[in-house]
Amino acid sequence: MQIAILTFDGFNELDSFIAAGILNRLKGKGWAAHVTSPTEQVISMNGVTVQRQRPLEFAREADAVLIGSGVRTREIAADADLLARIALDPSRQLIGAQCSGTLLLARLGLVGDLPACTDLTTRPWVVEAGVEVIDAPLMAHGNVATAGGCLASQYLAAWMIARGAGLREAEEAIHYVAPVGEKAAYVERALDVVRPFVEPAAGAPAA
Amino acid sequence: MQIAILTFDGFNELDSFIAAGILNRLKGKGWAAHVTSPTEQVISMNGVTVQRQRPLEFAREADAVLIGSGVRTREIAADADLLARIALDPSRQLIGAQCSGTLLLARLGLVGDLPACTDLTTRPWVVEAGVEVIDAPLMAHGNVATAGGCLASQYLAAWMIARGAGLREAEEAIHYVAPVGEKAAYVERALDVVRPFVEPAAGAPAA
Repeated sequence: MQIAILTFDGFNELDSFIAAGILNRLKGKGWAAHVTSPTEQVISMNGVTVQRQRPLEFAREADAVLIGSGVRTREIAADADLLARIALDPSRQLIGAQCSGTLLLARLGLVGDLPACTDLTTRPWVVEAGVEVIDAPLMAHGNVATAGGCLASQYLAAWMIARGAGLREAEEAIHYVAPVGEKAAYVERALDVVRPFVEPAAGAPAA
Repeated sequence: MQIAILTFDGFNELDSFIAAGILNRLKGKGWAAHVTSPTEQVISMNGVTVQRQRPLEFAREADAVLIGSGVRTREIAADADLLARIALDPSRQLIGAQCSGTLLLARLGLVGDLPACTDLTTRPWVVEAGVEVIDAPLMAHGNVATAGGCLASQYLAAWMIARGAGLREAEEAIHYVAPVGEKAAYVERALDVVRPFVEPAAGAPAA
């Protein structure tokens, strides 16, 4: 599974790197998450300069895409040329958006009138873009998921692993990154959050 | 408060960036966390190249220092010349170590025979270095704290904020980064974890 972590200037380090780090736990199974950016280097909201690993066009080739968050997302969301270079395909790709990434997902036409998650700061802009925002850390519809709050990126990663490799692998990845002494509680909560979007509901007909 | 985030080649992105991102929430109060490295660039355990913001020698000038974690910590811990450049002073600085950073802290002589935290992978090496490792996400003794498990870096940041700015500020920073819909639970747990190392115990004489 080759994953593009879409990372733009002004990016929030937590929103790009927590999910990327957790997804890379599956290196042994051939998974790799790559910092994917429009320019050779991107500078975070706190002045950290990071070298991209893949150009923006990698997003359309990747098996999965996570749209990170940052302080310049409203400018990016208004840049039609940039958005046209992203060209995602939810019929073939797993796609996730973190915090203000949900605004980009909406502009890309991938949210529609389905409820989505975002952070409290971005919420008014996402609502303005016509999206119904819910008070939850994660929501997924088929191959598209949204997460709200920096540390919800663990759930976005867990959802992607559960969808692409299985719940057991998601459990192991969260167990590894969870705080010592709280591992069981972290795993249980993460599985509770992602399970409804991975397995058919109890009593419902199998998909 | 100027904070050095000690970041070496092979670093774990979560362990450096979660704490740095949370500490930078206090930018308005003049706090700044800087990626501090021996070389101009460092490459993470997953191949992400990051430009350092401060040279290693900044560690001795900083008001606070966090020692990040990574896959090459055992090599670094064996490099006496490199360790000599770090020169920390716990009488003047707040010092935290994340996961395998605890091994460096031990080699720097800053753990002594006090119990400390680290991750499950590093644990045997830290024990070998003579440290008593406990099954908890955070432990602090005066100005020195250790954390175990990548996502425990939120507690290390919360401890540093609580010590340097107050519990109220730590609460606000954790509230901001916590998952939407779980903010109250995250704040409550983080405060429960750091409070014993910030306030005098109930019934105990004030320090």
